[in-house]
Amino acid sequence: MSYRDFDREQRDEELGRLWCEFNQIREEGLKLNMARGVPSPDQLSLSLGMLDILHAEADCTAEDGTDCRNYGVMDGIPECKRLMADLMGVSPEMVMIGGNSSLNMMFDAISCFMNHPAVPGNPAWSLVPDRKFLCPVPGYDRHFGVTGYFGFEMIPVPMDANGPDMDVVEELVKDPSVKGMWCVPKYSNPTGVTYSDEVVRRIAALKPAAADFRVMWDNAYCIHDLTDEPDELLNIFAECEKTGNTDLVITFCSTSKITFPGSGVAAMAASENNMKIIKEKYKYQTIGYDKLNMLRHVRFFGDLDGMKAHMKKHAEVLRPRFEIVLDKLGQLSDTGVVWYNRPRGGYFVSVNVMDGTAKRVVALCKDAGVNLTGAGATYPNGIDPYDSNIRIAPSFPSLEELSAAMDVFCLCTRIAALEKMNELI
Amino acid sequence: MSYRDFDREQRDEELGRLWCEFNQIREEGLKLNMARGVPSPDQLSLSLGMLDILHAEADCTAEDGTDCRNYGVMDGIPECKRLMADLMGVSPEMVMIGGNSSLNMMFDAISCFMNHPAVPGNPAWSLVPDRKFLCPVPGYDRHFGVTGYFGFEMIPVPMDANGPDMDVVEELVKDPSVKGMWCVPKYSNPTGVTYSDEVVRRIAALKPAAADFRVMWDNAYCIHDLTDEPDELLNIFAECEKTGNTDLVITFCSTSKITFPGSGVAAMAASENNMKIIKEKYKYQTIGYDKLNMLRHVRFFGDLDGMKAHMKKHAEVLRPRFEIVLDKLGQLSDTGVVWYNRPRGGYFVSVNVMDGTAKRVVALCKDAGVNLTGAGATYPNGIDPYDSNIRIAPSFPSLEELSAAMDVFCLCTRIAALEKMNELI
Repeated sequence: MSYRDFDREQRDEELGRLWCEFNQIREEGLKLNMARGVPSPDQLSLSLGMLDILHAEADCTAEDGTDCRNYGVMDGIPECKRLMADLMGVSPEMVMIGGNSSLNMMFDAISCFMNHPAVPGNPAWSLVPDRKFLCPVPGYDRHFGVTGYFGFEMIPVPMDANGPDMDVVEELVKDPSVKGMWCVPKYSNPTGVTYSDEVVRRIAALKPAAADFRVMWDNAYCIHDLTDEPDELLNIFAECEKTGNTDLVITFCSTSKITFPGSGVAAMAASENNMKIIKEKYKYQTIGYDKLNMLRHVRFFGDLDGMKAHMKKHAEVLRPRFEIVLDKLGQLSDTGVVWYNRPRGGYFVSVNVMDGTAKRVVALCKDAGVNLTGAGATYPNGIDPYDSNIRIAPSFPSLEELSAAMDVFCLCTRIAALEKMNELI
Repeated sequence: MSYRDFDREQRDEELGRLWCEFNQIREEGLKLNMARGVPSPDQLSLSLGMLDILHAEADCTAEDGTDCRNYGVMDGIPECKRLMADLMGVSPEMVMIGGNSSLNMMFDAISCFMNHPAVPGNPAWSLVPDRKFLCPVPGYDRHFGVTGYFGFEMIPVPMDANGPDMDVVEELVKDPSVKGMWCVPKYSNPTGVTYSDEVVRRIAALKPAAADFRVMWDNAYCIHDLTDEPDELLNIFAECEKTGNTDLVITFCSTSKITFPGSGVAAMAASENNMKIIKEKYKYQTIGYDKLNMLRHVRFFGDLDGMKAHMKKHAEVLRPRFEIVLDKLGQLSDTGVVWYNRPRGGYFVSVNVMDGTAKRVVALCKDAGVNLTGAGATYPNGIDPYDSNIRIAPSFPSLEELSAAMDVFCLCTRIAALEKMNELI
């Protein structure tokens, strides 16, 4: 019987039982963390061979003869550009290799356009006081953090099973102060949704009022499949070629969740026009990023096939963790008030608990020793208008910890829902 | 006899002899590079032990238990902050560790203040249309590149044997649109000058009209001594403490010319007020820089003494190169038209050839197969009003190459001087 069919007495009886359980768990003094999409030590150990793959002087030379120990090569060594180009499905000429963080490259791109126009002749974004950015929700808190920092008003766009609601997007881009849009097109953070072919095509066909509107295509989970039937994402650049919209999209990726999150290699790809503006900045910003680390990655993987084989090992570590989360969530089906996705890749399970209870669930979990991503974090400025979405990040804890943490989560979800019903009815 | 005492006939005779020599050299088809302050392969090999110093999982843990392979720790692991704090002569709490490039950290700091006020309540620098930056000349072209990129008018300040002319600086900072000043306080690029105690104290005592005036203290050559009698630089932060000017200075350094230029560790240090503004940016910009590379450095050096011992090996490789340059320049003393410094550290010899001939010297050298830093590069916007200063970077070529390159340089300096005299007289 669904919680929705409970009468007051049944709810109070159930609540009494649940509180008793909660108090027992709280006494155990758990300390469990499901807050961030952080690989587990088992995953990190998959890349240990990369640590000392460069030994001697002879190992440090790139294929074009560059001594990777020394200064130079602003946009990355050729073999690394090729590897990351293959990962992004673009040609190497479109690629720039950065440091250890694609977030930093996204920040740098927005920062660039703040003071140097994305389209020569247009005002730089800092000169547009009512500048806006489209934010599919639920989405990635660090994206919203960047545009928030640079003073953009962030317009939420609802996500559905196919990606962002394109009817809404097509309407919003008629406003010339709307300067861009965040996208995590594959195994989206946190919903796990991969944009449908139609959504990708409609993005590629956008005709924004602002000539300097840019889609920030953060393909963070491009080969981060959990199953042998991975989602397929259309190549956005191929679609933009067809629509003549080649300057619309800038794409980003990294090896943060492929090798070492703290010591990966980040990359971006964009049209010649976009790259011209962005490289004009990098020319002054740096002499070049860490080429030894680029070499380590190339030597460790060989090519994209090597990288994909490596990702299967990650999937083996991650899959049982996602199964635990989904099994435990399945036990909530009797409540009738919880919705969640079943992602085929990525790092998250997005759970919608009963409206108006997400904050309460997170607080209860914390009280019982389980740390979750803050409720609201998946919305711009941390404000979830439904107070419903919670991002579960199952990658870091051990299987035992995860199982215990999910028991707590389910318990708190039940308590919060019944409390809310008592309040409402 | 000095060229100045030559009559027309003597000059023509000398020129004829020199041109003959020039043409012979040109036929040799040299390809030599003295353009940038780039360590030689011999220097890079001094740090090869760092490449594979981390082997196994157990090697990857910082002293506070952080798994350096994973995400996190925005401002750097404690042992690396301590090492770089010792290098900069500050306390670890003042330090933030960055990626592989201190230039990037300087760019980031200026970029930060462009859109987010250095002093809350003041307008951000992008809102100051006539913003200006003080540029001691001759100076470092990449510094000037950054402030040029961000639209600062760059005001040259003459350097003398004690550092920037502080009478000029004290006058210029009365203009509230003057927002900062570049400094390479030790073994300055390119003059090799170390700021005198008096200059450091006068900088620390500056009372600029702009509350958000910032000194960019790029201590790039802080332990880059060539001799056993190194220059001593006063600690700017200690002096700022005395004057109560603790927010005035932001300091930068890196291991680029200590370990691997492409794969070093950069750091900055600043007051609590400055760090608050800057870390507020980094919070959105990155999850943290490459902690494995920080660990490699700490494990390789142990502490500052280890780093200093390592620098003695660099000095052994560099010293003979500087000796060749100075020996060859000494042979120009008969011309009476060339001035140069005798640095006790750093990476450059700054040569002033006869006024109005630097461009010609560089062009002639290029024609003979010797690549020099562009004439003018040591001045903002590449404009040396005297067309006189040339930066010689002796570190990269082999001793034989350097010797040949300096012969060409001296020859071209003579030719250009005599040509100019014929033109003038």
